[in-house]
Amino acid sequence: MPDPGRATPAEARALFRDGLRTPTAGWCTGRTQANLIAVPRDVAYDVLLFSQRNPKACPVLDVTEPGATATPLFDGDLRTDLPAYRVYVDGEAAGDVGDVRAEWRDDLVAFLIGCSFTFEDALLAAGVPIRHIEQRRNVPMYRTTVACRRAGSLGGPLVVSMRPVAPELVATAVRVTARYPAVHGAPVHVGDPAALGITDLDRPDFGDPVDVLDGEVPVFWACGVTPQAAVMASRPPLAICHAPGHMAVTDARDTDLVMP
Amino acid sequence: MPDPGRATPAEARALFRDGLRTPTAGWCTGRTQANLIAVPRDVAYDVLLFSQRNPKACPVLDVTEPGATATPLFDGDLRTDLPAYRVYVDGEAAGDVGDVRAEWRDDLVAFLIGCSFTFEDALLAAGVPIRHIEQRRNVPMYRTTVACRRAGSLGGPLVVSMRPVAPELVATAVRVTARYPAVHGAPVHVGDPAALGITDLDRPDFGDPVDVLDGEVPVFWACGVTPQAAVMASRPPLAICHAPGHMAVTDARDTDLVMP
Repeated sequence: MPDPGRATPAEARALFRDGLRTPTAGWCTGRTQANLIAVPRDVAYDVLLFSQRNPKACPVLDVTEPGATATPLFDGDLRTDLPAYRVYVDGEAAGDVGDVRAEWRDDLVAFLIGCSFTFEDALLAAGVPIRHIEQRRNVPMYRTTVACRRAGSLGGPLVVSMRPVAPELVATAVRVTARYPAVHGAPVHVGDPAALGITDLDRPDFGDPVDVLDGEVPVFWACGVTPQAAVMASRPPLAICHAPGHMAVTDARDTDLVMP
Repeated sequence: MPDPGRATPAEARALFRDGLRTPTAGWCTGRTQANLIAVPRDVAYDVLLFSQRNPKACPVLDVTEPGATATPLFDGDLRTDLPAYRVYVDGEAAGDVGDVRAEWRDDLVAFLIGCSFTFEDALLAAGVPIRHIEQRRNVPMYRTTVACRRAGSLGGPLVVSMRPVAPELVATAVRVTARYPAVHGAPVHVGDPAALGITDLDRPDFGDPVDVLDGEVPVFWACGVTPQAAVMASRPPLAICHAPGHMAVTDARDTDLVMP
């Protein structure tokens, strides 16, 4: 297996297609990772409008034609080339799987939505350590009590990812990530988890807990799992998503998404 | 009549509702102006996807619920409160009117799309004169030979607005407008009109010609009339748009749209 950070998107997708299951943080340095949500065509307008109305959580990078399994940004097979999928039937998660060829339908429209993993290289380059990469864990994600703006059949809570940051580096973390509006941009919240309705940082709703050291500040970014939370709340007949943290590795370059 | 630049959005909308027809460049300083396109619900997905795929030309600021005549950004009546409308039936412009209450339908979804008038205050503040405001004309707009990325039934050419800029101010004009990605952002083209397929700057496809002085460089920005050109090319049964240059004056503030 190649060093994950040095793997090309095509190499990573081939490994995932062949059965490797792993969170993708730290993979394919410099290449853009994306959240996946595929829904039937008659729900697609609501997903697209939900994204327009909640752009920090749902920055849309690409949308397929109905039934298509690739996009200009993702030159692979969306049904096999992610490390793990989560399939929702009537809003209920039907378990994580490594392949969704059996579940895919010709009327599905797939959305690739920006992922905060994209700005992690920039954070590291700016001297901001990233705990879940250090600890080789999935990033912790939390359902909040902040409601998204509804779109048709879709509504639900904002989901956030959390990275603990030393106080003297918080401003740097804000400044660096603000330059990436297409992948969630600046944090939505810095500090008090309770203000977001998060009662225990050690019990994330998605992903893994990470250590928060004495004096570190929890910093929260809008998360592309937000549409999955809306799917759970709104119960469309079918939604095929990535398993949280197990992203679509695209061919786009992070440098294409930074502000000029 | 109040000084147009000092009018509030509510005052401007009341004047337009009462019959005043005027291009809106220079009106309501600091408030965001928007392009309008309203289409039947079954075409709305294509408009929203066309906007996602052509974000420089079609930055979506707000979308109504089907049949609604106001949005969070526009606290007025979208059927009466623009100075002029252009109605397209089967892709053919049916003439400009000051009121579209008769044409409105309960299944229409209205899109408010960012307009480059928004960054004109910032250009003026940076010392970049704006010829169409000086000459009290509508901004010149041109259909180009650059094709937009298609979305379902909708495809068509990129439309651009043009402002002549002195060579020593071109960099300033780029720098200032790049900070407004939600209202077309940086120019798509600086210089040679022929490269965009524009043969005669004195004959714009929309709006009025303006004087280009010796040595000035024509600078082209993506224009929110682009969806209207797609409507003309793609012929949906009905589309209700603003008349070019006669924008929806919203309650939003330009400062909300500038990059951090």
